[in-house]
Amino acid sequence: MSFREGILIGIDLGGTNVRAGAISWDGQLLNWQETPIEAMRGPEAGLLTITQLVEDVIVKADRPVAALGVGSTGPLDRECGCIQNPYTLPGWEDVDIVGPLRERFEVPVALENDADAAALGEAWVGSGQDVKRMFMVTIGTGVGTSLILDGQIYRGRGGEHPEGGHIIIDPSGPECYCGAHGCLESLVSGPAIAQFAKNADNLKSSVLYDECQGNLKKIDASMVFNIARGGDALCKQLVEKTADYIALGLVSIIMLALPDCIVFTGGVLRSFDLLEARIRSVIAQHDVIIPATKVKIQPAILGQQAGMFGAARAAQLLLMDTKK
Amino acid sequence: MSFREGILIGIDLGGTNVRAGAISWDGQLLNWQETPIEAMRGPEAGLLTITQLVEDVIVKADRPVAALGVGSTGPLDRECGCIQNPYTLPGWEDVDIVGPLRERFEVPVALENDADAAALGEAWVGSGQDVKRMFMVTIGTGVGTSLILDGQIYRGRGGEHPEGGHIIIDPSGPECYCGAHGCLESLVSGPAIAQFAKNADNLKSSVLYDECQGNLKKIDASMVFNIARGGDALCKQLVEKTADYIALGLVSIIMLALPDCIVFTGGVLRSFDLLEARIRSVIAQHDVIIPATKVKIQPAILGQQAGMFGAARAAQLLLMDTKK
Repeated sequence: MSFREGILIGIDLGGTNVRAGAISWDGQLLNWQETPIEAMRGPEAGLLTITQLVEDVIVKADRPVAALGVGSTGPLDRECGCIQNPYTLPGWEDVDIVGPLRERFEVPVALENDADAAALGEAWVGSGQDVKRMFMVTIGTGVGTSLILDGQIYRGRGGEHPEGGHIIIDPSGPECYCGAHGCLESLVSGPAIAQFAKNADNLKSSVLYDECQGNLKKIDASMVFNIARGGDALCKQLVEKTADYIALGLVSIIMLALPDCIVFTGGVLRSFDLLEARIRSVIAQHDVIIPATKVKIQPAILGQQAGMFGAARAAQLLLMDTKK
Repeated sequence: MSFREGILIGIDLGGTNVRAGAISWDGQLLNWQETPIEAMRGPEAGLLTITQLVEDVIVKADRPVAALGVGSTGPLDRECGCIQNPYTLPGWEDVDIVGPLRERFEVPVALENDADAAALGEAWVGSGQDVKRMFMVTIGTGVGTSLILDGQIYRGRGGEHPEGGHIIIDPSGPECYCGAHGCLESLVSGPAIAQFAKNADNLKSSVLYDECQGNLKKIDASMVFNIARGGDALCKQLVEKTADYIALGLVSIIMLALPDCIVFTGGVLRSFDLLEARIRSVIAQHDVIIPATKVKIQPAILGQQAGMFGAARAAQLLLMDTKK
């Protein structure tokens, strides 16, 4: 039997849940399951949880396993196959995840960070299919980018994942933990939008203030977007500001890399309908020396399954690489 | 005889001169010549000039030609092998340059824009040798970028050359023909530096004003740099401002692509000694979530021969591609 008839297991390891799916060689999801990772119980218990989940998925798929991939919340060390993440996964530092899985299932095991895995999934069977150069931009609590070139993850120096969420957009902007003032994340992430709202001069005359009953801690980006839909002046201003800054970020990506498409995802971009017209209009202003408006800007379509698909795709790429 | 024993001809076609060199398979320059292109005499006369120059170089090298490459001032259309440049080469629009050269010399002919050719040259035998990801940044009359990945030119959507000189740096900056306010070129190109000088409040108290005898048209970037060396307050401010903006541009490149090295060239960067300390210090401030200071920032070393070497390398890559 060819290894192409075996299944690929994609594991999406987050801070709260772990999800595993059995995926065919051509990208069909056969079955999947999810369970709490309970990271506080430590990496050993976590590995048992993951192994059990994978076993269940394999039994249900009733086909041999060809390879296994993990997309994990970072930071991680791909070289040694370890998770180094005491933040999202408390106590998980220097946790070898590739070794035990390889030993247990006796197949090649790939490890990618979750952002790259999601991008790989979208490029494989999602929004960026058949595209040579796909940038994925995630705007939520943080802002991140991944670049998929010819179906492969673009890696920076030393194999590291670049941090395109921190390109400079406006040096007069807020300070960020990355060392910059006015990087993209400091201007358009969920917390950044909430902070702009809290600092606004006209906050008290906004529905936002009534809504949070004066308790500014309650303000978050989704509240801003929801109230903007009702026509509130401040929230509409904040939405416009967010759209302008996102557009400038996309313009820089387009100028520097001229991808075929930019696939977006993340909590803030769930309100893309509110942002879209203005983003596209700003990009159109920059369509002079470069065909900026021809770069497709479109939502991710795999939702929370992107990471699982991408992890399976990473497994597939690793396997094909070993068969060369 | 293997085609590897033949020579590669690299042609660097500029608005003023054309240069051709015979280069061995391993990147040794055997001989080269240069002559005015006299673009005003039209493309037919120009093509004759180029052909004659190449013949002279071949005769002198006394070895068979394996392939030929042209690095030309753009815009150009690589697909059809045409130059579309009525700006720098008056009258040269839709000029097929690949066809006639291929017919005359009966070898594969590659065509690249001059920026990509220069970057390819530096990556082959210059400053970016043995580097997986090399960004070249040119700062002169204009600002441009080229990315070489695994020894090949990175191309944007539709094979087009990205315009990384126009990433957004400061939206409060000057308007640029690219549609942006405060793109990198609008802030750090030679003309941009001169314009900042002309607009400065304290211009009249600067040595700059004496030097140009009140004729502001005489002010250019190299004058600013020269006078800064003497300690003039305004010129020193302008140098610092230029360094800060260049650094922010490099930070964005590092965040988005995390290359192994950034090779710089161009007229403004000839004064790198004045800019270097401040550029490195700003980049060091951004060395938090990404190893920004580990990205090598170094000058191009091939000077005016970079384009010729790169054109020869493009010819070599094309030939290897056809032999696959």
